[in-house]
Amino acid sequence: MSLPRIPRDPENDYSREAAARRRDLIREETGAELEHVSSFSFDPSVLPGNIENFIGVAQVPIGLAGPLLVDGEHAQGEFYVPMATTEGTLVASYSRGMKMCAEAGGVKTTIVDDRMQRAPGFLFDSAREARDFVVWLDEHYDEIKEVAESSTSTGKLIEIERYHASRFVYTRFDYTTGDAAGQNMVSKATWFACEWIKKNYPPLNDYMLDAQLSTDKKHSHINTLKTRGKRVVAEITIPGELLERHMRVTARQIYRSRQIATQGGMLSGTSANTPHPANGIASVFIATGQDEANVAESQACLGYAELRGEDYYSSITLPSLIVATYGGGTALPTQSECLKVLGCDGPGKVRKLAEIVAATVLCGDLSLGSAVVADEWVDAHETHGRNR
Amino acid sequence: MSLPRIPRDPENDYSREAAARRRDLIREETGAELEHVSSFSFDPSVLPGNIENFIGVAQVPIGLAGPLLVDGEHAQGEFYVPMATTEGTLVASYSRGMKMCAEAGGVKTTIVDDRMQRAPGFLFDSAREARDFVVWLDEHYDEIKEVAESSTSTGKLIEIERYHASRFVYTRFDYTTGDAAGQNMVSKATWFACEWIKKNYPPLNDYMLDAQLSTDKKHSHINTLKTRGKRVVAEITIPGELLERHMRVTARQIYRSRQIATQGGMLSGTSANTPHPANGIASVFIATGQDEANVAESQACLGYAELRGEDYYSSITLPSLIVATYGGGTALPTQSECLKVLGCDGPGKVRKLAEIVAATVLCGDLSLGSAVVADEWVDAHETHGRNR
Amino acid sequence: MSLPRIPRDPENDYSREAAARRRDLIREETGAELEHVSSFSFDPSVLPGNIENFIGVAQVPIGLAGPLLVDGEHAQGEFYVPMATTEGTLVASYSRGMKMCAEAGGVKTTIVDDRMQRAPGFLFDSAREARDFVVWLDEHYDEIKEVAESSTSTGKLIEIERYHASRFVYTRFDYTTGDAAGQNMVSKATWFACEWIKKNYPPLNDYMLDAQLSTDKKHSHINTLKTRGKRVVAEITIPGELLERHMRVTARQIYRSRQIATQGGMLSGTSANTPHPANGIASVFIATGQDEANVAESQACLGYAELRGEDYYSSITLPSLIVATYGGGTALPTQSECLKVLGCDGPGKVRKLAEIVAATVLCGDLSLGSAVVADEWVDAHETHGRNR
Amino acid sequence: MSLPRIPRDPENDYSREAAARRRDLIREETGAELEHVSSFSFDPSVLPGNIENFIGVAQVPIGLAGPLLVDGEHAQGEFYVPMATTEGTLVASYSRGMKMCAEAGGVKTTIVDDRMQRAPGFLFDSAREARDFVVWLDEHYDEIKEVAESSTSTGKLIEIERYHASRFVYTRFDYTTGDAAGQNMVSKATWFACEWIKKNYPPLNDYMLDAQLSTDKKHSHINTLKTRGKRVVAEITIPGELLERHMRVTARQIYRSRQIATQGGMLSGTSANTPHPANGIASVFIATGQDEANVAESQACLGYAELRGEDYYSSITLPSLIVATYGGGTALPTQSECLKVLGCDGPGKVRKLAEIVAATVLCGDLSLGSAVVADEWVDAHETHGRNR
Repeated sequence: MSLPRIPRDPENDYSREAAARRRDLIREETGAELEHVSSFSFDPSVLPGNIENFIGVAQVPIGLAGPLLVDGEHAQGEFYVPMATTEGTLVASYSRGMKMCAEAGGVKTTIVDDRMQRAPGFLFDSAREARDFVVWLDEHYDEIKEVAESSTSTGKLIEIERYHASRFVYTRFDYTTGDAAGQNMVSKATWFACEWIKKNYPPLNDYMLDAQLSTDKKHSHINTLKTRGKRVVAEITIPGELLERHMRVTARQIYRSRQIATQGGMLSGTSANTPHPANGIASVFIATGQDEANVAESQACLGYAELRGEDYYSSITLPSLIVATYGGGTALPTQSECLKVLGCDGPGKVRKLAEIVAATVLCGDLSLGSAVVADEWVDAHETHGRNR
Repeated sequence: MSLPRIPRDPENDYSREAAARRRDLIREETGAELEHVSSFSFDPSVLPGNIENFIGVAQVPIGLAGPLLVDGEHAQGEFYVPMATTEGTLVASYSRGMKMCAEAGGVKTTIVDDRMQRAPGFLFDSAREARDFVVWLDEHYDEIKEVAESSTSTGKLIEIERYHASRFVYTRFDYTTGDAAGQNMVSKATWFACEWIKKNYPPLNDYMLDAQLSTDKKHSHINTLKTRGKRVVAEITIPGELLERHMRVTARQIYRSRQIATQGGMLSGTSANTPHPANGIASVFIATGQDEANVAESQACLGYAELRGEDYYSSITLPSLIVATYGGGTALPTQSECLKVLGCDGPGKVRKLAEIVAATVLCGDLSLGSAVVADEWVDAHETHGRNR
Repeated sequence: MSLPRIPRDPENDYSREAAARRRDLIREETGAELEHVSSFSFDPSVLPGNIENFIGVAQVPIGLAGPLLVDGEHAQGEFYVPMATTEGTLVASYSRGMKMCAEAGGVKTTIVDDRMQRAPGFLFDSAREARDFVVWLDEHYDEIKEVAESSTSTGKLIEIERYHASRFVYTRFDYTTGDAAGQNMVSKATWFACEWIKKNYPPLNDYMLDAQLSTDKKHSHINTLKTRGKRVVAEITIPGELLERHMRVTARQIYRSRQIATQGGMLSGTSANTPHPANGIASVFIATGQDEANVAESQACLGYAELRGEDYYSSITLPSLIVATYGGGTALPTQSECLKVLGCDGPGKVRKLAEIVAATVLCGDLSLGSAVVADEWVDAHETHGRNR
Repeated sequence: MSLPRIPRDPENDYSREAAARRRDLIREETGAELEHVSSFSFDPSVLPGNIENFIGVAQVPIGLAGPLLVDGEHAQGEFYVPMATTEGTLVASYSRGMKMCAEAGGVKTTIVDDRMQRAPGFLFDSAREARDFVVWLDEHYDEIKEVAESSTSTGKLIEIERYHASRFVYTRFDYTTGDAAGQNMVSKATWFACEWIKKNYPPLNDYMLDAQLSTDKKHSHINTLKTRGKRVVAEITIPGELLERHMRVTARQIYRSRQIATQGGMLSGTSANTPHPANGIASVFIATGQDEANVAESQACLGYAELRGEDYYSSITLPSLIVATYGGGTALPTQSECLKVLGCDGPGKVRKLAEIVAATVLCGDLSLGSAVVADEWVDAHETHGRNR
């Protein structure tokens, strides 16, 4: 091996100098000049807890979509939505949907569940000991809850789900986590709980802090069923006239296409039977400092529509939308600015953010769903996109 | 409604002035100052095709992981991997895995399939006409291929998959797409093909350009089976001694934990039975200008491991890794610099990039998988992360 | 239309005469002589509640497998297992597995959960009313439980699961159902509950008694997670020497093949990662008067194995095994005789039956799993089966 | 262990005497008298290839449903359908649906695909050799086909599907199998092919004759996508007036309920979004000598409906319906009589049988689907079923 190890400055690693030293190494070893990467506008001292071996930044262009009219319980009124993306037509398409939805009275949003989990697996000699453990778990729930919550000022244990297979009990420890997404908080709390259990329940052989039922940064059916992060519904009834004017489709046409696509989705075994929830989610996530890897979970989406005379009722349910207004990347310079654009800075705003994201997704799905029907999809990318 | 429409400059919308005008609007309406968002280092004239209503950039911190030693067919040797993320410990953890894997001789990578698709649904009066259509499709494959390919200089049609349900034929038009991810290319080519089919096959009632079998920007079982983008395998056999030294686990311990987690994954119905492929994928995607929404598809991962005496064979298969070195955000300033760091700039490098990403994922999964076993996971986040 | 309606005898439809009249019609209209179908050995007056338009019987051959040694909590000791099937080699193969498992000390069985459900969907104006309904549901759980249970002397409501999507609350009303499988019992109880809810909760628009979350007579992921019928684990550790003597495979060989097949099962998206649970289940079901359509649910199976030195630990988890010793076809003449063979006639034996079925499944999976490895599978069917 | 081994008569095991000897053993050891089990009407000498350790028969009551009017390509006209079941109301409910569908002009059926598979996994040193194998496989397809087909007079290899993961190639060898279901035929043919491959392709380490992609006697997503057995669509458009008269529901009501249930099915992750395909399938299977364990695969069903003014278009797609008119239990006495009732005895009738089953399923789903809506479901079971 020939490449040197990446240098760290034990004294002051989160500094412009340390970053420059690493970029120097890159230049020497790979010839790459990192002119733009090095053009960040903030002091690296804000970065501990967000990155290691810092060398600079990715500059991801932000476009402004909206105004988006939301009739939520936490988000109420109009919003400009900053979307960080490199996909042409995306911002324009979401804006088109937002415009139509605003004229239709806005998107109604409801958060129907809210929980973050860590999913330890408990190992026993046989299924019999595993089954008996669950009884003990119920009897000691209050103590376990106390131990878990002792590690955090915010997280509250709300349930321990359990699923048996073989000689194991697979559990999910569900928490509310305040304004944070909460993955670290629940890891720590659950680790405290598991260590206490291990000490107090001798038949337990061992445990594994996460045994693939959370499923952190992965899509899963269990999260579609049981919620991870926020479970949010966005709904709207759009007068047929608006659909025709803005989207050049009738309610009947878009409705029919969704039915065909839903059967297609059953065939393909998809995580979402609507056009492209991940686009809206990923772009708002980057802009506002969410964990991009949570796109894996957050993109799950159940679309349900009805033809109501000449009008079109459309709803999307995001069963595992993971958002934060505290922690993670939310305090970083550009990211916190974007949260301010949405009025989602400061405490108590995470549900507002979740509602805005859900409303955004619905508008984008209506727009692309219509474009596919109206045969304008390819045209749009011809005009706005980088076609090759 | 009270918020003004977002202003556009019909003459010169991709300019610092137009962006500033939109930021002014934001300041007036929301009070948000976009000081850092406005601190971009490039001329907005590079942006058409990537964004609309440009206002500035998200600055996402990049950390350097590595050196990563890859024994691929396209990627050979050592690499420093730029990862854009806001999750503390991520870069450190991936680097730890890379170090161990380099000592073990590097990660072997193989691209086993490569295809991008658009998935039109064809509508008929009944299943009978749908079934007969498929015969006609086979007979006219060469003409359809010619028509589809006439719209693109790069895309080549390689197969038309077909799936029957009800009175529909759900198809997937599979293409190779050169250095581009190719979603737009295949949309256009397939639209050409569909229009030709519509004209030449009178029994066809109608078609829908994508009927949810692609499944663009969504996870799906069909993509895990049939590939979307690159299907890449990364493999390594790690001597037990290295695992113990670097990860403080034995081969037997990590192997056992993967087996338990795999059963957990069957229970949860997850898209990936390994610890966190999406973390590596999302962070390299942001750094190198990939479409972040494709994390939805790319995060699918099949992990398979074997205990070989005291050593540990570990492999991951990414069945739907969507990457590009051309088009999308790859030519943007910071993004193209990061591609250069990996030696993936210029033509013919997309498979190299795919191999680097797959090797990165394997290293990260080994590192986190070990940390969970070694009971160091929570500790690591205590040290590096933003715990709350 | 030319075929006459099927005749019924309003006075005495469950008689040999009424059956003969229908067979006469068949002979006249189709030419089919039903000599064997008409050779039933019981009085049709036992049939009301089991069949309409009775014409005779299917005679399904029963083979005897065993002895099966079970180390259960309800089934203890040795059993001869009657299996009704027309697939050659099936009984022989299960017997082979049973013999080996008996020598290894028998199959340990544990019932870890037990519940039957009906799954009403509740319809509201919007997601907001749907969410609020759940609060009300919790507050009125005791009353609902009382109303539901008033319709049945056996069924006990144990939980109301709830899952939100769009403007609906999809629920599962879970019951214990005594010795019966309980589908009708829970339908009736849940209907009572729903009618009471409808009367007492004005915001409810309507409900649908089963909205596809039960999922009665269908496989589903939710049942694999949350149990339908009995959730049973069967386990055994087989000394390597026994495997080699009985199955001509080493523990290492069969273990390796299960790992490869488990990855195969993730690829295929299968309901069971073991060789053929449905064979054992379907054949015991027919013999003992279970509802054959419940094979759809009961065949789900999670296989988990470990290599323990030279020995082999193997377990199967049946998450949705639906069995009864009361109701359905269990009281019919041949069926009740077979229940007696198993000592599962009379009250309080349903869990014993569940354990026997699970132990049977494990033995059959070990036998076929080994045959595939030992390259004896095709040979066996050459010898015992109807090869064509 | 105390129970004696089950006696076999090496001279004449398929005799009334040998069966009696085994029943004697049962009586002695368990006390169970098998009076009805022993009342079979045929000579046991017909049984080799269908059962081992024969002791008698399960007598499963058969009810006659119909007339069923089918507008198929193989099944044309009216049929009485023998259904073997012990579930009260089942025959009555299917008959109700058949009556309505006959008045609506009959059920249109179409077989859109037909294939049976064995799914060997091929093991290599690494993914690279696995990938290269596929190239060789394509180059030698004709030879492999010849070798495979040399083992059978009926089976024809039509495709080798391949799916890569880790260092394996998971394949599916697809065949047409004439009038037989064909599982044994394809096992043997594929074993011949694999042995030839092993001899002729040295880089191959080993193979496993079925690596869980077939997925024999299990439900799987791959079979829903890619077909196993017959893929059959049944369709009908029912005038609203008929629905109201026969089912006491409007087209709009039943349509709405299917939409809600389809979303429910996405939530539950079900194999079928229609009410109860397995009921019709299992009961016709038992009556006609099909392999009951294939209910596991055959019960998968995609329902798709449309509201057409006041009328209701309903279709079901059975993607993996496994039926035979030759082999298995089809030649047994009662079973062959039931095949005659359907006019499905003799060569060349297997597709006719498949169409009849699919039409039956559609009628049953319409009937139960309506009963749920009309709030008559519980009532029906009160009247016809064994309620407890």
